[in-house]
Amino acid sequence: MNLIDANTPEKIRLTVDDAVQLGESALKGIGYTEDEARVITHHLLDNSLCGYEFAGLPRILAIANSPELQKPRYPVKVIHETPVSALLDGGNHVGYISVNAAAELAIQKVATSGIAVVGVANSWFSGRNAYYLEKIARAGYVGIHTVSGSPMVVPIGAKRPALGTNPIAFAFPGQVDPFIFDMGTGATMWGEVLLHAFLEKDFPEVVGVDANGAPTKNAKEIVNGGVIPFAGHKGYGLSLAVQALGLLAGAKMRAGNVSDFGFLFIAFDPEIMMPAAEFKAQLAELLQNIKNLPRQDGVDEIRIPSERSCRERELRREQGILLQRRVYDQLMEMQAVHG
Amino acid sequence: MNLIDANTPEKIRLTVDDAVQLGESALKGIGYTEDEARVITHHLLDNSLCGYEFAGLPRILAIANSPELQKPRYPVKVIHETPVSALLDGGNHVGYISVNAAAELAIQKVATSGIAVVGVANSWFSGRNAYYLEKIARAGYVGIHTVSGSPMVVPIGAKRPALGTNPIAFAFPGQVDPFIFDMGTGATMWGEVLLHAFLEKDFPEVVGVDANGAPTKNAKEIVNGGVIPFAGHKGYGLSLAVQALGLLAGAKMRAGNVSDFGFLFIAFDPEIMMPAAEFKAQLAELLQNIKNLPRQDGVDEIRIPSERSCRERELRREQGILLQRRVYDQLMEMQAVHG
Repeated sequence: MNLIDANTPEKIRLTVDDAVQLGESALKGIGYTEDEARVITHHLLDNSLCGYEFAGLPRILAIANSPELQKPRYPVKVIHETPVSALLDGGNHVGYISVNAAAELAIQKVATSGIAVVGVANSWFSGRNAYYLEKIARAGYVGIHTVSGSPMVVPIGAKRPALGTNPIAFAFPGQVDPFIFDMGTGATMWGEVLLHAFLEKDFPEVVGVDANGAPTKNAKEIVNGGVIPFAGHKGYGLSLAVQALGLLAGAKMRAGNVSDFGFLFIAFDPEIMMPAAEFKAQLAELLQNIKNLPRQDGVDEIRIPSERSCRERELRREQGILLQRRVYDQLMEMQAVHG
Repeated sequence: MNLIDANTPEKIRLTVDDAVQLGESALKGIGYTEDEARVITHHLLDNSLCGYEFAGLPRILAIANSPELQKPRYPVKVIHETPVSALLDGGNHVGYISVNAAAELAIQKVATSGIAVVGVANSWFSGRNAYYLEKIARAGYVGIHTVSGSPMVVPIGAKRPALGTNPIAFAFPGQVDPFIFDMGTGATMWGEVLLHAFLEKDFPEVVGVDANGAPTKNAKEIVNGGVIPFAGHKGYGLSLAVQALGLLAGAKMRAGNVSDFGFLFIAFDPEIMMPAAEFKAQLAELLQNIKNLPRQDGVDEIRIPSERSCRERELRREQGILLQRRVYDQLMEMQAVHG
């Protein structure tokens, strides 16, 4: 049942079940298999439920319109494998599929070997890193996930980009919810640059350089230049480390260009170090100690990363999700035209 | 042969061999075994050679004067072990010994299993993280090293510290030298706070809070308060992730307090992903591409982390190292009194 929300008439409220059906049908309409449509939609819905509306079903339109994703796809395959590792060829799939396959293989390998490194390249954008890490953490494992990408970030001292926005993320299993932390290593996200450029809005501070390498707050200039690393030399070094880890994920193997995405997971069972229950209890105590600290004036609560999105999700599972009417109509059309 | 340097009469220049002998003799003078003295001195000398003068032989005075290190020590021992992991009890040793043992065990385990996690707690300061990671990288392996420590860093929104300055470091084997990146997650290093307090010098910007949680640039106030994370929420989240990894290294096992140091290594052979030579070639190309980028005005060279210290070391191996005469005299006295 779709209800038009009285407060936001340009948006439609969908139950989770209806949203799943809409997403899956639209994807099948543009040629994705039943399984692929299910995997992609599950990720996108989870993004919406966690409060990342723009990372939700609207991404299906981006998938439909991406020239890269119109190129031939083939099943994700293992290029190299050991009991503690695997390197995958992502088959030119969107990361929602191939990175999910890598995360699931990492979980399988940790279950038998205690630890694993799994990398995948020849793939495109993968959505929210926490989505994959949450699977690993809910399986009971610790996970580190890095993603190297196309040149957008300018090394300190340089005029042109050579590094991706290169996020790094960590996840730990918890007594109830996992603790997950995910960060990019650019001074701003590339999506923010595009959004600011579209809105013709400057950034409040210098976050990039123009095409000539001159520092600028202007988003349109940054689109043709690059983003600077966050926090100076620390952000630069971290970005470079993530780029190097991306090479180990096969980032360079496809096109001989480091601009390719390289998705790497390192995951291990806490049991290889100590009883998992003991680790979870200690982690809970650490996080609770932090939450119990005396607070700065005006601070209601000391936040733990990933805590908010878990709460949001509970709430929205009941309330359903909001979708722009324009997006809803286009998704309906996709299933009608191609279905 | 010791030469008094004409340009710095308060300093003495020592050949590497003489410096090694001085360090080892002083340590044996205060009760360290032949082996322990060798391991500690090798690390301290390497710090000096890489240009970190204060992290060199003067640290022997700190070791001699640390009340914690006067407590009984026992050999580093394995508490828990699998083919891919080990948790060590550091035996109340200074980290120079126990963290070195952890790094060497990690190398052994990677040699047989392809990957390993090794943690050590019940230990004290460990010096330069890059020292341990360089061993791992020169053995041909990729390494990640995190260190959780005593509460010095204040979570966002809090008034009191709950996290260590919690460094995280990465190392990759190279065709010649490894690429190593090491960063702390506080807005400044604790050593800088102590130095500024000693010199009665303010920081140029707010890097901490006072005992009441009020933001301050004053180093003496920060000593009684805490340091803020670098880069706001990103630094806070990263610090928290490192603290959680420290739990897996056994940080809490000794005294039931997360303030203990927790040293963790994750290391793996690039061969589990791809031929090591291929990885090294790709890494060299990535770094060279960065060095070849057009540079900002006034920039002579785009720096790669760890590059400078490798160069310094080559130079200083020939020139020898400089030591404060006061430190030299004290070290001579240690070997005379106790030797």
